[in-house]
Amino acid sequence: MAAAVANGLKKEQTRPNKYAVISGPTNPMVTPLLTDLYQFTMAYSYWKAGKHDERAVFDLYFRKNPFGGEYTIFAGLEECIKFIAHFKLTEDEIAFIRSSLPPTCEGAFYGYLRGINCSDVEIYSIPEGSVVFPKVPLMRIEGPIAVVQLLETAFVNLINYASLVTTNAARHRFVAGKSKLLLEFGLRRAQGPDGGISASKYCYMGGFDATSNVAAGKLFGIPLRGTHSHAFVSSFLSPDEITVKSLKHHDGSSVCKDFVSLVKTWLNKLKGSRILGGIFSETNQSELAAFTSYGLAFPGSFLALVDTYDVMRSGVPNFCAVALALNDLGYRAVGIRLDSGDLAYQSCEARKFFQTIEKEFGVSGFGKMSITASNDLNEETLDALNKQGHEVDSFGIGTHLVTCYAQPALGVVFKLVEINNQPRIKLSEDVTKVSIPCKKRCFRLYGKEGYPLVDIMAGENEPPPKVGERILCRHPFSESKRAYVVPQRVEELLKCFWPGSSDKKREDLPPFKEIRERCIKQLEQMRPDHMRKLNPTPYKVSVSAKLYDFIHFLWLNEAPVGELQ
Amino acid sequence: MAAAVANGLKKEQTRPNKYAVISGPTNPMVTPLLTDLYQFTMAYSYWKAGKHDERAVFDLYFRKNPFGGEYTIFAGLEECIKFIAHFKLTEDEIAFIRSSLPPTCEGAFYGYLRGINCSDVEIYSIPEGSVVFPKVPLMRIEGPIAVVQLLETAFVNLINYASLVTTNAARHRFVAGKSKLLLEFGLRRAQGPDGGISASKYCYMGGFDATSNVAAGKLFGIPLRGTHSHAFVSSFLSPDEITVKSLKHHDGSSVCKDFVSLVKTWLNKLKGSRILGGIFSETNQSELAAFTSYGLAFPGSFLALVDTYDVMRSGVPNFCAVALALNDLGYRAVGIRLDSGDLAYQSCEARKFFQTIEKEFGVSGFGKMSITASNDLNEETLDALNKQGHEVDSFGIGTHLVTCYAQPALGVVFKLVEINNQPRIKLSEDVTKVSIPCKKRCFRLYGKEGYPLVDIMAGENEPPPKVGERILCRHPFSESKRAYVVPQRVEELLKCFWPGSSDKKREDLPPFKEIRERCIKQLEQMRPDHMRKLNPTPYKVSVSAKLYDFIHFLWLNEAPVGELQ
Repeated sequence: MAAAVANGLKKEQTRPNKYAVISGPTNPMVTPLLTDLYQFTMAYSYWKAGKHDERAVFDLYFRKNPFGGEYTIFAGLEECIKFIAHFKLTEDEIAFIRSSLPPTCEGAFYGYLRGINCSDVEIYSIPEGSVVFPKVPLMRIEGPIAVVQLLETAFVNLINYASLVTTNAARHRFVAGKSKLLLEFGLRRAQGPDGGISASKYCYMGGFDATSNVAAGKLFGIPLRGTHSHAFVSSFLSPDEITVKSLKHHDGSSVCKDFVSLVKTWLNKLKGSRILGGIFSETNQSELAAFTSYGLAFPGSFLALVDTYDVMRSGVPNFCAVALALNDLGYRAVGIRLDSGDLAYQSCEARKFFQTIEKEFGVSGFGKMSITASNDLNEETLDALNKQGHEVDSFGIGTHLVTCYAQPALGVVFKLVEINNQPRIKLSEDVTKVSIPCKKRCFRLYGKEGYPLVDIMAGENEPPPKVGERILCRHPFSESKRAYVVPQRVEELLKCFWPGSSDKKREDLPPFKEIRERCIKQLEQMRPDHMRKLNPTPYKVSVSAKLYDFIHFLWLNEAPVGELQ
Repeated sequence: MAAAVANGLKKEQTRPNKYAVISGPTNPMVTPLLTDLYQFTMAYSYWKAGKHDERAVFDLYFRKNPFGGEYTIFAGLEECIKFIAHFKLTEDEIAFIRSSLPPTCEGAFYGYLRGINCSDVEIYSIPEGSVVFPKVPLMRIEGPIAVVQLLETAFVNLINYASLVTTNAARHRFVAGKSKLLLEFGLRRAQGPDGGISASKYCYMGGFDATSNVAAGKLFGIPLRGTHSHAFVSSFLSPDEITVKSLKHHDGSSVCKDFVSLVKTWLNKLKGSRILGGIFSETNQSELAAFTSYGLAFPGSFLALVDTYDVMRSGVPNFCAVALALNDLGYRAVGIRLDSGDLAYQSCEARKFFQTIEKEFGVSGFGKMSITASNDLNEETLDALNKQGHEVDSFGIGTHLVTCYAQPALGVVFKLVEINNQPRIKLSEDVTKVSIPCKKRCFRLYGKEGYPLVDIMAGENEPPPKVGERILCRHPFSESKRAYVVPQRVEELLKCFWPGSSDKKREDLPPFKEIRERCIKQLEQMRPDHMRKLNPTPYKVSVSAKLYDFIHFLWLNEAPVGELQ
């Protein structure tokens, strides 16, 4: 082991062969230097005091659900495990730390840093993609205090945004409803390159169906979507510039030599229609050229952005002309995208236009043409669209989703709860900021109807809750809030994802698609009143009676007695 | 050239040797796949129509200043240039694109993709770190339309967050004032790993003094700061556990064998003081141990976080005892950090405590001990602290700064303004979304007092504004808004940062510190009423009379005539 580390071996450090090899972090910028300087100054101080190997337990948790909601999705675990599996300071990194600390620091410290890895760290965690609640540890990290603190900043960074954006995606899905296709289009507005890549990953996890982000598609196997932009439309001047005009019939049986003329014929038929002809007169020729050209390139997946000039007087008729020409050749167009204006109204008008075509020209299925809407969508606008009534099948959501515009940060923290088997508490004048001490086990208790009822934290050595046995669940800080529960099912939340040098079994990191399925299933399992947008019911988080007493004993012990003057 | 590309040469593509070599993007995840799928579907469609090499000009700009202000800092250019200098699709990437497009797409397209690079792209840009305004192109990108569109998403991604967070940093600096030390502490709350690294880079550019982010310190040479956390404090139980107690005098003349006792002696002296003794009685022993230990580790740079238990009844007296003991041994402590509660009040109380020590114990300079404040600071709280009156010397700012909490996205767009020498306009029912057509030159006109007065855009072939010559500046969309200006200085804004195959001179990318200096100098040069937080005066952005006429001619030409029904 020591030799492997000394060789700078970048493989997994301590796991026997029965486990799958863990690859490195998705972003190569995730290194041991992705941390706050104070983790290194503290490490030096611990080392100097001979305290660096003291066994410490930290809890990673958050204090408040985001977006005014009552739930959060836990995400980012896999990236944390990938990070620690390869945690090792390079010589170059050590030299940089040396240059950043005062020259009075003893040289032997850098020898200590050279030897550090995570072989003696144990990580228990709630599985990624779980629905989680404030105060309950998402991860419990145990190990030599100096090493565990060196992990803090990267862990919190990797969990914070991942959990926030997954939760945001789940909330968007909740408002949009199950039947809609949700597309993440946020890369260009994300906070930096991997803000974009992480957003795509975690939005898919939270229930989106696809992304526009090619790099994320490749990295995580997320379905990709995308057609064309406004620039594409305005890059054409008129159909006359299209020189390659032929298109083979879908079944290969024949070739249409002049697809451009076929489109024009259809446009004239639409104009001549008693109903449709009243809606538009001359359509925009740039747009007609662009759609025709796009149809020639993608006859089997034709989807057009119809709002460059005027949705109903140009975009929709132009689209339909191309779609009908394609239909003549055996191809089924996919639909349109609306990117501005009154999306509800436009979608209904477009739907009527499509339905009229289906009836008037006998094109079966044309009325069901897909309508995608985009343009600054968020939870509120989705909700408003639902109330207005709309005909949108698919939503493309960007800025608000990926930057978590409604609340761009989650307050994940990393608190010391025990050192050398001594429980520690972090006090605060603000009671919501008081930490829950002790190395703990956490359980989710389910009721008769199959819904989770309450999460309960208990000391490590307490007997776990049992199915059918009444247990007292206490609010950690409020004396009067408590309830008896008889669980129908008991789920232990924290599982061992990194056993360190212990002989515990390591949970394998599930494939990304399984994490996504877990997430979607967990969301469905929650009692609906916890999930609703308006005035959701808080889910209960509690401690055992024994832990409650201990917290309050420790609290009194640590808090200074005030003196009124 | 072609051979070099075929070899997959990852060096700079077409620049002669006289230019400095450009390294790759800071984040290795910035690749040609960091884009929206539709850039590839459009590329295929252009290629299929034989249109891919048509010469197009795109403007990259934004429409509205962020944070309710009237200015923005342009940042991210260097990363864009680094990206295009190495823009080349790998075989693996091409295979992935092939698998993402319909199987009907012709195979020869992938051969075309294989040959693509940016040797035929020209980029004109405002220098990074400049103060910029809505509608004026930050970058003008010209080249084969398919290639230029493949750059869009990455460019917008790289500019959006960079400019947003730099502007946020500049705004925080403006409120804090020049004399305060500003520290960026946001890594753990940033939107992913390079959200954190970019934040540290661009906050420094926007006027911050240091960061806690070690990786950013190493990458960009940013000064690092950091001491210890609350966990460090609570990891100690009492001073008895400190075993290594000796500390050498700063001048090396002697050794104090029991620094712990020296600290205790000082604490008793403080308690015995007539004035100070009334403020506190028993201080927390964990904290005293932690501070003592930290002082032993960093005697020359002792800075303590004093709010773990109680600032005035424990943290400050404990800190002072250690600081005074260090003072006996010739070391000067740095100061304290406050991380909760009423920062203004606490800083004033702590200052009084320090000043009393200076007077009562004759420790020269002790009253000037540095006070750092942190805990959810933002523009508003800095402003409120200023109004309350405080004694803080240094602010540590995290979440609100790096996630741009007040507005987490900037709306940078990338619009086609000309193709094959034909100007193009993007219309919209919303007049602020209409694009300004034509390949343009942009100038900043300065007045007699040295302040910038107005930015003006003109057609490429118009004569540029001249010093001392009266010129009409027109609002691009509002007929009645216009003004004559006699500039005292004319600055051409767009400079050639990537000449492509043209023989124009390439601006070298300045070192990071120069960009930062430019930014700080530009901010100082602005007329103060544009910069103030409350009701700032909008800076004027205009077009030449000729461009104005042309915009409106094209607009009328493209817009459909409505029919009221």
